[in-house]
Amino acid sequence: MKIKTAEILCVGTELLLGEVVNTNAAYISQELARLGISVYHTSVVGDNPERLKKAASDALHNADLLILTGGLGPTYDDLTKETVASLLGLPMVRDEKILAEIEEFFASWGRPMPENNAKQADIPLGALPIPNKTGTAPGIFIDNGKNVVVLLPGPPFEMKPMFSDFVYPRLRQMSDKVLVCHNIHIMGMGESEVETHLLTLMQDSTNPTLAPYAKEGEMRLRVGALAESEAEGEKMCEEMIEKVKNSPVGPYIYALDAENIEKLLVSTLKEKGLTLSVAESCTGGYLGKRITDVAGSSAVFTGGIITYSNEAKMSLLGVSPETLERHTAVSGQTAIEMARGAREKLKTDIAVSVTGEAGPTPDPATGCDVGTVFVGLSAENTEYATRVHISRHRDREYIRKVASSRAMREILKFLSKNE
Amino acid sequence: MKIKTAEILCVGTELLLGEVVNTNAAYISQELARLGISVYHTSVVGDNPERLKKAASDALHNADLLILTGGLGPTYDDLTKETVASLLGLPMVRDEKILAEIEEFFASWGRPMPENNAKQADIPLGALPIPNKTGTAPGIFIDNGKNVVVLLPGPPFEMKPMFSDFVYPRLRQMSDKVLVCHNIHIMGMGESEVETHLLTLMQDSTNPTLAPYAKEGEMRLRVGALAESEAEGEKMCEEMIEKVKNSPVGPYIYALDAENIEKLLVSTLKEKGLTLSVAESCTGGYLGKRITDVAGSSAVFTGGIITYSNEAKMSLLGVSPETLERHTAVSGQTAIEMARGAREKLKTDIAVSVTGEAGPTPDPATGCDVGTVFVGLSAENTEYATRVHISRHRDREYIRKVASSRAMREILKFLSKNE
Repeated sequence: MKIKTAEILCVGTELLLGEVVNTNAAYISQELARLGISVYHTSVVGDNPERLKKAASDALHNADLLILTGGLGPTYDDLTKETVASLLGLPMVRDEKILAEIEEFFASWGRPMPENNAKQADIPLGALPIPNKTGTAPGIFIDNGKNVVVLLPGPPFEMKPMFSDFVYPRLRQMSDKVLVCHNIHIMGMGESEVETHLLTLMQDSTNPTLAPYAKEGEMRLRVGALAESEAEGEKMCEEMIEKVKNSPVGPYIYALDAENIEKLLVSTLKEKGLTLSVAESCTGGYLGKRITDVAGSSAVFTGGIITYSNEAKMSLLGVSPETLERHTAVSGQTAIEMARGAREKLKTDIAVSVTGEAGPTPDPATGCDVGTVFVGLSAENTEYATRVHISRHRDREYIRKVASSRAMREILKFLSKNE
Repeated sequence: MKIKTAEILCVGTELLLGEVVNTNAAYISQELARLGISVYHTSVVGDNPERLKKAASDALHNADLLILTGGLGPTYDDLTKETVASLLGLPMVRDEKILAEIEEFFASWGRPMPENNAKQADIPLGALPIPNKTGTAPGIFIDNGKNVVVLLPGPPFEMKPMFSDFVYPRLRQMSDKVLVCHNIHIMGMGESEVETHLLTLMQDSTNPTLAPYAKEGEMRLRVGALAESEAEGEKMCEEMIEKVKNSPVGPYIYALDAENIEKLLVSTLKEKGLTLSVAESCTGGYLGKRITDVAGSSAVFTGGIITYSNEAKMSLLGVSPETLERHTAVSGQTAIEMARGAREKLKTDIAVSVTGEAGPTPDPATGCDVGTVFVGLSAENTEYATRVHISRHRDREYIRKVASSRAMREILKFLSKNE
């Protein structure tokens, strides 16, 4: 059968209570979008068989494909599999191979299988079990010719590999459209200004589409083309990207299809064979954390110095007492001396520093508003600092995240100037 | 009117495409749970007036309260307000006071109001506007005697303060139950073992309920009592908490109602008047970042040293070349010397260090599996390291997060032993 439309139904009282944020729906939606399968509705119900049955039945009526997550565990309140099987009129059968795998999973941890885990080996008659390498609950793939129903466990680290390894390739064969997407990354121009320049283009374009997303101090324009083939989709996207590049937004584009700025930074430094260190005040380690989120960052990142107190700024980075006295800790001069200190101490080609007011209340000693941040950069024959203004209405997490993004952007800017 | 049940309907094509994770539903669900208002269903629809109308109409049929987020912006595809007003048969009227506020908002940024923002000043007849201090879109509160309908903007930093300042107090008066919740925090005993000990208690308890949540290397047991008054709910919870404390799980409880371990650590250090520094290898700044997530952490946290390379471990922390040669960078001895170095350099009462294999592939030089982490602690007359085993099946983010949690847990353990 061919799949054009899908619904996602996430099961779990913890979702309805807001104890867990529903990242599964976002992940699956993104993957379905890539397949050109339209999702018009997603919903959440608790571990309640009647409401689950009603929601699943509605979804099967409205869409070709129904993907359920959650409620496949071994405990008494895990009911998704039984409820869906009963809705589709399928009896449950015990799969001895799966049972052996679950027993083996426990054995690998040196423990006997608890009795209640055995029910995880029951599957609806005629369904395909989906292997689960990181947990005990197998998924279920049912194709009854009228609908495809996929059941996946709730924990994202189990669900995601099962989706990408097993479900995605099968759905790929059942979808006759393909969505080709590209992202244009923008920093330094605000959301409404970008929209002003591109509004007509956004409104008039239905395929490919051009959609703006503002996120934590940067903007992304998503170009999506629904096409018969990858090649056709690529061509459609390319034309749209050219239009954006030639608009007044063009000069603010800093990357195309960057997964994130951390990876872009690490790969750019690797290409150029340069090493980096950081000196952090208000970000308190956030910048180092984000750079080292990238596997393999050790090739370019040697380390950093977190100086939260003024004493540490002086003793570990050699910021001069006069600078702190005259300019305060939140100043361009302090940022420059911090970067210089990190570069000297960690012996790297480039060092970047961040110092600022992350809030919630400003430090009276600095006289700066919350959201005022200075980024310093030190490299051979180069030293400078730039002031970044972040809205003081935003919270500490936002300000610290944007401050660390701007520090990375500053390094990228410096590297592109020196090409 | 009295409110017993609610549905949440989030509007936005970006949610259906998975471009944005739906944190709004989680936040609102949690707040409604606190009010004793039951949410049986939440859903997401795109910026499509027909599907929005259908979903809102279903929700109004099933629940007393409908909360919608998203689609209140100034752009052409923001349609929530108009769609809901039409569903309820209410004409739109322009509110001159709101219009003036929007103009003022733009003026405070030194910009004229774009014409399309004027429609944000239109509200359904008889509705209350909900002030928005961090954006231009006011919310809408409608009580027609049969249903309460609340419209809030999509960006969480706008939505949350509007909900807590305006919506929550009004709903509080309309709900006749109150849910009192407490969380029991557990580290060091696995999920299935905790459930084995408490299964009967979980299954037999309907009010108060006892529900387990496993999250990133720790477990939380949530006790929730639906009661007529706060006092009655507190008493019901207290009895359940006593039962858990007296079970075999008791010794693994490390906190009750800790918002998170970061805040617990900072407040405990403040109480004891002790200062802290960190030395990080595999966490690359994550530990410092998490500690400085806490506003006011500067009172106890002076800074940290991120030593990603062996050279930096030696030059900045004084780890001896022999130790690195003989034990490798991922070892208890290295962890101890890292903590010692940070404590000396940053002159703090306590220092903690983290070194380990965060993956995705292990460093052959250390001979350790991915997930092997050592936490070192240095304090007056005390130096030790502990080995932490984290599943090698987990990703880099998980391993680094759990490693930093364990480091914080180690400090708390040390502090409680020295009481």
